[in-house]
Amino acid sequence: MIIEKYNSRAEKAKSLLCVGLDPDFDKLPQEFKNKDNPQFEFNKWIIDQTAEFVAAYKPNIASYEVRGEAGIKELKMTSDYLKQNHPDIVSICDAKRADIGYTSGLYAQAIFDSLGFDCVTLHPYLGQDSVQPFLDRTDKGCIILCRTSNPGAGEFQDLESGGEKLWKIVAERVSKEWNRNNNCMLVVGATYPTELASIRKIVGDMTLLIPGIGTQGGSVEEVMKAGINSQKKGLIISSSKAIIFSVEPATEAKKLRDEINKYR
Amino acid sequence: MIIEKYNSRAEKAKSLLCVGLDPDFDKLPQEFKNKDNPQFEFNKWIIDQTAEFVAAYKPNIASYEVRGEAGIKELKMTSDYLKQNHPDIVSICDAKRADIGYTSGLYAQAIFDSLGFDCVTLHPYLGQDSVQPFLDRTDKGCIILCRTSNPGAGEFQDLESGGEKLWKIVAERVSKEWNRNNNCMLVVGATYPTELASIRKIVGDMTLLIPGIGTQGGSVEEVMKAGINSQKKGLIISSSKAIIFSVEPATEAKKLRDEINKYR
Repeated sequence: MIIEKYNSRAEKAKSLLCVGLDPDFDKLPQEFKNKDNPQFEFNKWIIDQTAEFVAAYKPNIASYEVRGEAGIKELKMTSDYLKQNHPDIVSICDAKRADIGYTSGLYAQAIFDSLGFDCVTLHPYLGQDSVQPFLDRTDKGCIILCRTSNPGAGEFQDLESGGEKLWKIVAERVSKEWNRNNNCMLVVGATYPTELASIRKIVGDMTLLIPGIGTQGGSVEEVMKAGINSQKKGLIISSSKAIIFSVEPATEAKKLRDEINKYR
Repeated sequence: MIIEKYNSRAEKAKSLLCVGLDPDFDKLPQEFKNKDNPQFEFNKWIIDQTAEFVAAYKPNIASYEVRGEAGIKELKMTSDYLKQNHPDIVSICDAKRADIGYTSGLYAQAIFDSLGFDCVTLHPYLGQDSVQPFLDRTDKGCIILCRTSNPGAGEFQDLESGGEKLWKIVAERVSKEWNRNNNCMLVVGATYPTELASIRKIVGDMTLLIPGIGTQGGSVEEVMKAGINSQKKGLIISSSKAIIFSVEPATEAKKLRDEINKYR
């Protein structure tokens, strides 16, 4: 259901671009710092400028939690603003959660219901039963960390078991076992295009969230060649600081959207 | 530094008991539901009754996040109340975080500074560089998930690489590489005493956080036999709902503290 929502929006906006709404308070322009609800006002300004080029928005919840209750209030305001003004754009809470099942149920309620997001990112380490309350939400999307974008991602993810690396086993389990409700996706860093190509082979047309373009150094061309699916979709390509803290966020968003489409 | 704090408190209170402050709103007695700041007032009531038997308190942040900004405010009030009234008791934020390094820096600030906790629980899946901002905090404690207490914990944690299971590799890496500041601990579920015994052999006297006593079915006797270290400490044994939602929380906390000491 969320996958269809993403695909429709991707068609409509001719875009596979996701803008990361990570408005770290210290980095905000002074005019926003002085406002009530500075993070929300900044996000609203970014959304108003970039929405036409965007298929998804992805706030990382850490940028808000660092401000305590005020941050959480402004994250909720951002989610509400999106739902009211752009109900066809997919909203992803990048929260990287997972706990034992009972507690995951509370997190699912917090992120899907209290905050109102369409999707959440999740750690796989505790196994399927731990994230079942997320998987059970047929109306929502579960994006599980597979191969992350950080330099040391391989420390555990590259360990081999039975001749296969852990990230590969995660991709197999999620696509073949966890995805009964067709609501699973995977996180694959743009910084690892070879791994991305292997994952695409394992998961068929599954949609993949791709962080690591821009500041972290991932290449759009390599990501597109390795990751696009048979429907010329299947990727949510995320860029945050390189867009939201640029001089002209709309221009940067359009530029990246168009660059992605060049390789589609 | 936090390990010494825990050990001093364990001596003083003759206790290895940690009480989980997970005051799910629906489960609160009606008298608390009607108050301003219901979760905080309930926690204060629990803390006032149980503090003398306790070496640590561990709120699971999901119980608060589910109430949005109000929950976060009351979690902060709880942390402040502990610091003011029981500065020698260790406070653990069970948040199971981990993201790429930059974002983990924000989480560290959120949990250690904004909320003011002594320790946090962390996912290992992204590797050491992802949690470095937590590890760098010599004044704080980092408790990394190793073998979790849930029934399906083995799905990935039991995968073997080079003849060793993933949880064993995590225990080795954390104790030998990540622990340069002597501020690392591990989470090991009470429901897996055999694995606990192996982990104790790998990590020497490292302190381990043990959830899964009580509701989840772990046995105090088995945990103590498998997990106590050479100093007759090294365990933080956590119980939540079985204490806080009992008819007499003080009696239950004392009973569990004494049962733990029986096997020390």
